[in-house]
Amino acid sequence: MANGYTTDLSDEENRPGTNAPEVVVQRLPLYVRVLAQFDAANNEMVSSEQLGTQLQMTPAQIRKDLSYFGRFGKQGRGYNVKRLSQELRFILGLDRQWNAGLVGVGRLGRAIIAYPGFQPEGFHVVAAFDADSSLVGSSVGGIDVRPIDQIKETVVELDIQIGIVAVPASNAQSVFDALVESGIKAILNYAPVAPQVPVGVKVRGVHPVLALQSMTYFLKS
Amino acid sequence: MANGYTTDLSDEENRPGTNAPEVVVQRLPLYVRVLAQFDAANNEMVSSEQLGTQLQMTPAQIRKDLSYFGRFGKQGRGYNVKRLSQELRFILGLDRQWNAGLVGVGRLGRAIIAYPGFQPEGFHVVAAFDADSSLVGSSVGGIDVRPIDQIKETVVELDIQIGIVAVPASNAQSVFDALVESGIKAILNYAPVAPQVPVGVKVRGVHPVLALQSMTYFLKS
Repeated sequence: MANGYTTDLSDEENRPGTNAPEVVVQRLPLYVRVLAQFDAANNEMVSSEQLGTQLQMTPAQIRKDLSYFGRFGKQGRGYNVKRLSQELRFILGLDRQWNAGLVGVGRLGRAIIAYPGFQPEGFHVVAAFDADSSLVGSSVGGIDVRPIDQIKETVVELDIQIGIVAVPASNAQSVFDALVESGIKAILNYAPVAPQVPVGVKVRGVHPVLALQSMTYFLKS
Repeated sequence: MANGYTTDLSDEENRPGTNAPEVVVQRLPLYVRVLAQFDAANNEMVSSEQLGTQLQMTPAQIRKDLSYFGRFGKQGRGYNVKRLSQELRFILGLDRQWNAGLVGVGRLGRAIIAYPGFQPEGFHVVAAFDADSSLVGSSVGGIDVRPIDQIKETVVELDIQIGIVAVPASNAQSVFDALVESGIKAILNYAPVAPQVPVGVKVRGVHPVLALQSMTYFLKS
């Protein structure tokens, strides 16, 4: 316990990144992308000014963001591109493979299975589920479609950590409930709903149409 | 000018929605979706409590959100589902067609052209552009691919209001610059970058991989 005589911090506070605001965590993958660009251009070192220009942030913001996760830079020398990239990838858990289960294999679900962007980044759709019994047992993009009520056992069987929801809005909440019930803590949501999930479960939405619809308001006015 | 003796507001302030915070505008398309569900279930009226349950918000927040855009409900009677939906669609500009120009017809760009979700909502990809001269002149999903330097004239020719960016990160900023230069004020961004655009230009990102990458951090810890 803190006694006023020591600068020791609790274990929790000592773990780098524990106190990082969610918005900073959401920015880290962009850092990784930008660092990859600097690396591809054969830059060994990069300054917070250079990172700031690419990320549309001030150098001070860059330094503050990174300070949540450790001491990466050297005063006046900037950051080693490869090392910072490697450390951020480790912090984000991008140095390993993650297995995802997709719920909904309609047109959108099929496009998600075919999406070429996931696999190179370590995200593998290893299972698919659908409520439509005529689809169950069929194979979509090499993945066997299972019934919704097998989510829980499949999550254990195939070591699935991520759920992907691609069902119509009307069915979405029950699918979220089933994923949460099976122990999933991270869900990528393509359904146009704001789902209800318990604290500790992360949901990120992918909504091109909703995004367009919230821009036309400004085009109109 | 305000003189303390009148409750008249300036034209700007009198226009419904002018003072709505951006986050409220971003929620409105979800209202439209939820109202469509109530309508499909043959509900004539809906309360702010019912809307709140679906949208994971308090009834007071719902009433506050809607109050930016007009007086829709009747005390104790709730909202007429069809009427509120119609008015919100009008406010958001969803009662008309919008033309979009896609930049980048690689694998991602092709998937965007084939995406079945845009057309039914009134968004039409009417032009495609690519920097690769071997693709220019070819047809992708029925759309002729034009060179990047024809963006400006094509935007005028085909009455394009929305840009869609699906190029690699390294080329993205120059594409944003070209779209802005051509007068485009709304851009859907699939490139994994945080682009720099002038005030008055809206950008919304669609980034499934970045979304996944910011959740694995929490799975790991």
